Amino acid sequence: MKISIVGGNGPMGALFKGFFEKEGHTVQPLGRKDEDFYKERLCDSDVVIVSVPISVTNEVIRKIGPFIDPDSLLMDMTSIKVSPVGEMLKAFPGEVVGTHPLFGPSIDGLSGQIVVITPARGEKGLLWLTDTYKRNNVKVTLATPEEHDRFMALTQCVRTLNTMVLSKLIMDNHLDPKTVLEYSTPIFKAEMWWVGRLFSQDPELYAGIQMNNNMIGSIFNDYLAAGKELVDIITRKNKRKFSEFFKESADYYKEILDEAQIRSNEMINEITRE
Amino acid sequence: MKISIVGGNGPMGALFKGFFEKEGHTVQPLGRKDEDFYKERLCDSDVVIVSVPISVTNEVIRKIGPFIDPDSLLMDMTSIKVSPVGEMLKAFPGEVVGTHPLFGPSIDGLSGQIVVITPARGEKGLLWLTDTYKRNNVKVTLATPEEHDRFMALTQCVRTLNTMVLSKLIMDNHLDPKTVLEYSTPIFKAEMWWVGRLFSQDPELYAGIQMNNNMIGSIFNDYLAAGKELVDIITRKNKRKFSEFFKESADYYKEILDEAQIRSNEMINEITRE
Repeated sequence: MKISIVGGNGPMGALFKGFFEKEGHTVQPLGRKDEDFYKERLCDSDVVIVSVPISVTNEVIRKIGPFIDPDSLLMDMTSIKVSPVGEMLKAFPGEVVGTHPLFGPSIDGLSGQIVVITPARGEKGLLWLTDTYKRNNVKVTLATPEEHDRFMALTQCVRTLNTMVLSKLIMDNHLDPKTVLEYSTPIFKAEMWWVGRLFSQDPELYAGIQMNNNMIGSIFNDYLAAGKELVDIITRKNKRKFSEFFKESADYYKEILDEAQIRSNEMINEITRE
Repeated sequence: MKISIVGGNGPMGALFKGFFEKEGHTVQPLGRKDEDFYKERLCDSDVVIVSVPISVTNEVIRKIGPFIDPDSLLMDMTSIKVSPVGEMLKAFPGEVVGTHPLFGPSIDGLSGQIVVITPARGEKGLLWLTDTYKRNNVKVTLATPEEHDRFMALTQCVRTLNTMVLSKLIMDNHLDPKTVLEYSTPIFKAEMWWVGRLFSQDPELYAGIQMNNNMIGSIFNDYLAAGKELVDIITRKNKRKFSEFFKESADYYKEILDEAQIRSNEMINEITRE
């Protein structure tokens, strides 16, 4: 098959170019310099993948929609799903699938990674995509765009916020990062590596993820309220409530406690390794 | 040498019993059932280590202080340092060292791990201890008890609070932990393993760590303020301030960015491994 990746010259596009080429497909990466030729380059593609920054995704979808063969599959790889999926359905009459690979381009390979897929229109392209991923040990989570954005508000937006809060705390208290590492448990060392990783990346990407997810308002409110409530329990030295919260949590997470114990030990060994 | 570990039958005591025995010492673990014999068991020890729960540490120090040979070394392993070090200095006239191993008993070995040591009185025991640790590739961070508690307010208290906040968010939003994992990036999977690890443990231990550190009041206030400020920037979609914060952070952490990139990639590979 012929697959075109709009934005295919970026690191994420290159990762998927390699992946689909290994599958035996012909992959055509398209960049900004190809804009004038979108029409002729896209008209005979079997699959068109949009892999551009979140801030221009909808604009690119609107631009290319009319040029794509209606018998093709159109898919995106944006970190939010409600808005780009809606835009793809409007701009293009054929099969549409929203996807969100839950990883960045620096990984060794796609095996073991998760891609969330939000089916939108048609079945042929959807089946081809999920089959391709599963055959390569990529884990597929099927969801509606709304479900996706709701979970991402937690697993991506709150997580990023948390890392930013930690960074701000360290800066506001003028603590030297190298000295902090000398006082770090393995788990806190991991936090410091996530801090470093986050701020090595493009602020635009994260601003896009945080500011285009319609679900964050409510979950960020819950986040602030939970912080206040737990700080209160601790600073008032309310041991009873503290223990109750621990027991309630142990019960809530009981199905993952054993795996958490094994996997966290593995991580600690990895973090401690020289 | 003869080393006595008060509380030496617990998992942490057992870890250090093995460690010091490998060094050629005779190690005598003492538990609650030995309480009536503390005087005779402790009078001829060269080193006495206190390894009991944080809630009873000071009480145990006051009890055993008078029984220890003044030519011995007295040391503790509590997660806070200001209060137990002060208590050891009061209860015992000989050499005193405060220590805090920054790890739990489930690790494979002490190599690569960090122990914070707060010198208190005397040099002989301090040198013996730091030499022993360094020879075994245990990293030693020297600090005053106040410095220690200040850093721990961040690396231990804020970290634990963060994990509790995440847990509360998931519970309050009735999100199934196994489903959350299906929407998790590798970094968020790690968060879920830390959540599971925390709540598999004793609430008393963590209540003790959080409620006996005098520095948490100010850092928890900073934590709540940082959260509010960053949530504000995001929900008001203030891209300029968001980018400024990213750039300021990238600059602040510049010395650890390269290591963070390498180590976080290693962790992601470990987390993704089946």
